[in-house]
Amino acid sequence: MSSLRLETRAARAGAAAADCSILGALELIGDYWTLGILRCSMYGKTRFGEFQAELGVATNILSTRLAGLVEAGLLSRRPYSERPPRHEYVLTASGAELLPALLSLKEWGDRHLRDDGPASVIHHEGCSTALAVEVRCPDCGEPVGLGALAVDPV
Amino acid sequence: MSSLRLETRAARAGAAAADCSILGALELIGDYWTLGILRCSMYGKTRFGEFQAELGVATNILSTRLAGLVEAGLLSRRPYSERPPRHEYVLTASGAELLPALLSLKEWGDRHLRDDGPASVIHHEGCSTALAVEVRCPDCGEPVGLGALAVDPV
Repeated sequence: MSSLRLETRAARAGAAAADCSILGALELIGDYWTLGILRCSMYGKTRFGEFQAELGVATNILSTRLAGLVEAGLLSRRPYSERPPRHEYVLTASGAELLPALLSLKEWGDRHLRDDGPASVIHHEGCSTALAVEVRCPDCGEPVGLGALAVDPV
Repeated sequence: MSSLRLETRAARAGAAAADCSILGALELIGDYWTLGILRCSMYGKTRFGEFQAELGVATNILSTRLAGLVEAGLLSRRPYSERPPRHEYVLTASGAELLPALLSLKEWGDRHLRDDGPASVIHHEGCSTALAVEVRCPDCGEPVGLGALAVDPV
């Protein structure tokens, strides 16, 4: 998906960093307001006014970040009213695939940054327990922690 | 873990953002070099020289970021040589719990940012397929996508 490839700081840094998908993803979504918009999208918000109210962000900044997310192919802009002309912003397939990353950050932040517990619980419709993000080995089916990782260059 | 609580931009923005663990986590680990160090740690690097060689980062910046990660409780600094005195940096328990977030970002970046495929494969020791990050419902055991989420304020 070449529209997502950016001239990143990674490309100007060491070759190892330039090869790193983690740092590449950070360059794309790691801006504070950009990630805030994606988080609102995950929670089902689609409209400019909803993002603005939820994030408390200045409208010019919000416009810029939304345009960037559309250009990067993470949100698509589609009309929901003709008179007056109004658009909403919904996650594309590649934007929706950020769900595990966003939920992992939420799970970690809920556990380590909030003495008073999580502000919200994200669960499966019809079920009640908070969703869990798991790292699992497709070969043996086991959950895998940091001590059992191996890294191979391709 | 109150040492991890920071005066964040989130706290100065809207109340919704201030409550957001996702944005709180970004504030803590979303700096480019900070995330780069964490990624090296996940790959088993522990020494100043290893981080420096891998990331191509200036030594003064690396020192500052390592000190920040130690202060935030994500890395611990421990001696590995007495003469000369040398220290290494290893992930703490809370740092190690960032694994799903880091792997999710890698998985997403590998899929969407790299026309030439991933630069490395992270797999389970003794197995060969790349690790998968899954969002799963602990109640019903099903994998859950964005269309089946529900969000409840606590």
